[in-house]
Amino acid sequence: MKHIAIKDCKAHIGEEIALRGWVRNTRSSGKLIFIILRDGTAEIQAIAFKPSLGEEKFAVIKSLTMESSVIVTGIPQEHPKKPDVFELDINEIEIVQVAEEYPITKKEHGVDFLLSNRHLWLRSRKQWAVLRIRHTVYTGIQEYLHKEGFIRFDSPIFTPSACEGTTTLFEVPYFDLGNAYLSQSGQLYLEAGIMSLGRVYDFGPVFRAEKSKTRKHLTEFWMMDAEAAFVEHEENMRIQESLIRYVICKALTENQIELEILERDTGKLAKMDAPFPIITYEEAIEQLQNKGSDIRYGDDFGAREEEMLTEGSAVPVFIEKWPKEIKAFYMKRDPEDDDLVLGSDLISTEGFGEIIGGSQREDDYDILLGRIKAQNLPVEENQWYLDLRKYGSVPHSGFGIGLERTVAWISGVQHIRETIPFPRMIYRIQP
Amino acid sequence: MKHIAIKDCKAHIGEEIALRGWVRNTRSSGKLIFIILRDGTAEIQAIAFKPSLGEEKFAVIKSLTMESSVIVTGIPQEHPKKPDVFELDINEIEIVQVAEEYPITKKEHGVDFLLSNRHLWLRSRKQWAVLRIRHTVYTGIQEYLHKEGFIRFDSPIFTPSACEGTTTLFEVPYFDLGNAYLSQSGQLYLEAGIMSLGRVYDFGPVFRAEKSKTRKHLTEFWMMDAEAAFVEHEENMRIQESLIRYVICKALTENQIELEILERDTGKLAKMDAPFPIITYEEAIEQLQNKGSDIRYGDDFGAREEEMLTEGSAVPVFIEKWPKEIKAFYMKRDPEDDDLVLGSDLISTEGFGEIIGGSQREDDYDILLGRIKAQNLPVEENQWYLDLRKYGSVPHSGFGIGLERTVAWISGVQHIRETIPFPRMIYRIQP
Repeated sequence: MKHIAIKDCKAHIGEEIALRGWVRNTRSSGKLIFIILRDGTAEIQAIAFKPSLGEEKFAVIKSLTMESSVIVTGIPQEHPKKPDVFELDINEIEIVQVAEEYPITKKEHGVDFLLSNRHLWLRSRKQWAVLRIRHTVYTGIQEYLHKEGFIRFDSPIFTPSACEGTTTLFEVPYFDLGNAYLSQSGQLYLEAGIMSLGRVYDFGPVFRAEKSKTRKHLTEFWMMDAEAAFVEHEENMRIQESLIRYVICKALTENQIELEILERDTGKLAKMDAPFPIITYEEAIEQLQNKGSDIRYGDDFGAREEEMLTEGSAVPVFIEKWPKEIKAFYMKRDPEDDDLVLGSDLISTEGFGEIIGGSQREDDYDILLGRIKAQNLPVEENQWYLDLRKYGSVPHSGFGIGLERTVAWISGVQHIRETIPFPRMIYRIQP
Repeated sequence: MKHIAIKDCKAHIGEEIALRGWVRNTRSSGKLIFIILRDGTAEIQAIAFKPSLGEEKFAVIKSLTMESSVIVTGIPQEHPKKPDVFELDINEIEIVQVAEEYPITKKEHGVDFLLSNRHLWLRSRKQWAVLRIRHTVYTGIQEYLHKEGFIRFDSPIFTPSACEGTTTLFEVPYFDLGNAYLSQSGQLYLEAGIMSLGRVYDFGPVFRAEKSKTRKHLTEFWMMDAEAAFVEHEENMRIQESLIRYVICKALTENQIELEILERDTGKLAKMDAPFPIITYEEAIEQLQNKGSDIRYGDDFGAREEEMLTEGSAVPVFIEKWPKEIKAFYMKRDPEDDDLVLGSDLISTEGFGEIIGGSQREDDYDILLGRIKAQNLPVEENQWYLDLRKYGSVPHSGFGIGLERTVAWISGVQHIRETIPFPRMIYRIQP
């Protein structure tokens, strides 16, 4: 018997095949039992008809519990009224395991219960849908980068010390070398990479020991950093814009079923082909003040400000040219205004917040050294990074995109913890 | 002026274009200077001719040091004698930066010096070639898995405790929860993933606090773990074999220049289409003893044994059906012999050692519980993993492939530290 994936039923209509998967639920009506069977690729309704299966087999099927594993043989048919929906009349069924009473039922469960049972919660329709969208977003980002000539360059996770001097690093005792620190971004390493490979990216886990319990924070999350030689600030934003558009287009094409399960308003996602507006930090402050915010020039933006700035916008908005004091030391200064840096944040729509941060990088040795000293960062630990400005320095830019926030935005999921298989938060490292 | 990548010169023959990159080296001969220019995508010879550039410009070009960054304008031509080799007569040159004296020269450098200057060493031709092959291997593995219906499922790095009870875990102080441990494999998590998604994989960094200084060890390295529902031992090996063949074929197609730089004997790689032999552990022991080894039944294999077992073989060799005492608790027992498990190691050719470890997994609750207890592993911490055998358990299998070892094998590079951008070893976390 030929085993096929449920998603491939369309190509096997009228042919006897076998499906292998789990019972989502069953419903019986006289001589019929309807099983919703899932196998990870899709779901299908499989129908058991008592007269053709016989008394005994029918009773066995009737006793199937939720999440029982089965192998079902039959002939897929198109649903008489719904195009592209398929059904299967069961000719034969093999029970692999009758599941014990499944702890996750249709009733509302507390989030702590669900997180403690994350290994099972993953099977629910919504979680399945989000994780499939995560796959699309990850691979979509990669496809776009490969098309644009970026080479994968995995930055290290163990880093020697606070090159960037942040207070939210996880420490790891490391043999006789004291502590190593878990990386928060591979960017500095990527800048070395472009001098060999031209354009590079990494895409792996990063870590933030932040005592934050908001719906947008995880201690372990995935980040893609890209870096390109001879790319300047404006082009950097154009690359980001095309990347986002590419990924959304891919999700709309490949994840229709998933987006429907999540009740995502796909009409909103479909509007992304308009250009993303670029406003300066200064203009953003003005807009916010005009809308009644008491924010002042020099303040960073929080979730509330990000929401106000994209209110009513169908597409994400770039905020560029930030005061140098509130941005990282490596950002290149604006040649037109020494107090600003050529950095940009991309704020998504519908209140999902910042999804990309990027900038042109400082390529002048002395200016960079001055910035390192001004921010009281260690010069010696940054010497290798300074070196990159000594041996064929070039203008270059890059950006970092948070995978989970992007998945949350595209899926329309409010809490980031549902966008990663096993979320890690301040009070949770289990299961 | 149109900026193009050096690799694209072929499509712009006879057209004036600009190239942006770094000076690999220069050589002058009378009225001519030959510059080897590299931009990360490829190299090209750019030729400065004194009469057409003028005295002053020619003198500037003559002063260019190694690794200086430049933008060169000219018209690409095919080399008169070498097909597919291109040259460029320089019409114009813009010096971006004249590099200071470059510390890495043609003379032999000690490995410690090179590792301390890894941020610069990356630019050397060999390192460039290896990292491009790494890109091919990573993306080749992904392409194969996607073709076979595997969905990306990123396992957590922070894990609650020694589910697998190994002594080589890195510990991370984690807020009020005590220690978290850095993952050594995502496999157990992937087994939860298949129950939702059918077939899944992860591909990220893993960590081993091993006090080992061999050429095959890193403390931080990249691993791909794949797991599939309803796949049994034999099919599991077939998937691995096709995967390896796919990746090698991709490298031979896409990395001809890189393999030539590395002086890799590609004839050996091209022989991979023969079937990979499968021998049992017991047969392997016999073979070794016949070759004069004093290994005994029940011993694990070291580098020497792996080399002996693949000596003279054109293709990798599977060793299957191991004694259960020397393999992990989660491997399914051989139904034909209760003392063996349905695990397999794939040993590469030419002494590059094991590149894949895989097995069918134990899917019976009571047997698995017994194995956990027999190995003195904590039952409570493994309860979530045991749960997977309660709610629709299915036969399933998976395997893990080490990225760096595979890259070393395909590249023919002897030391694994050259196969990752910034290697981390017992005495090195810098730069």
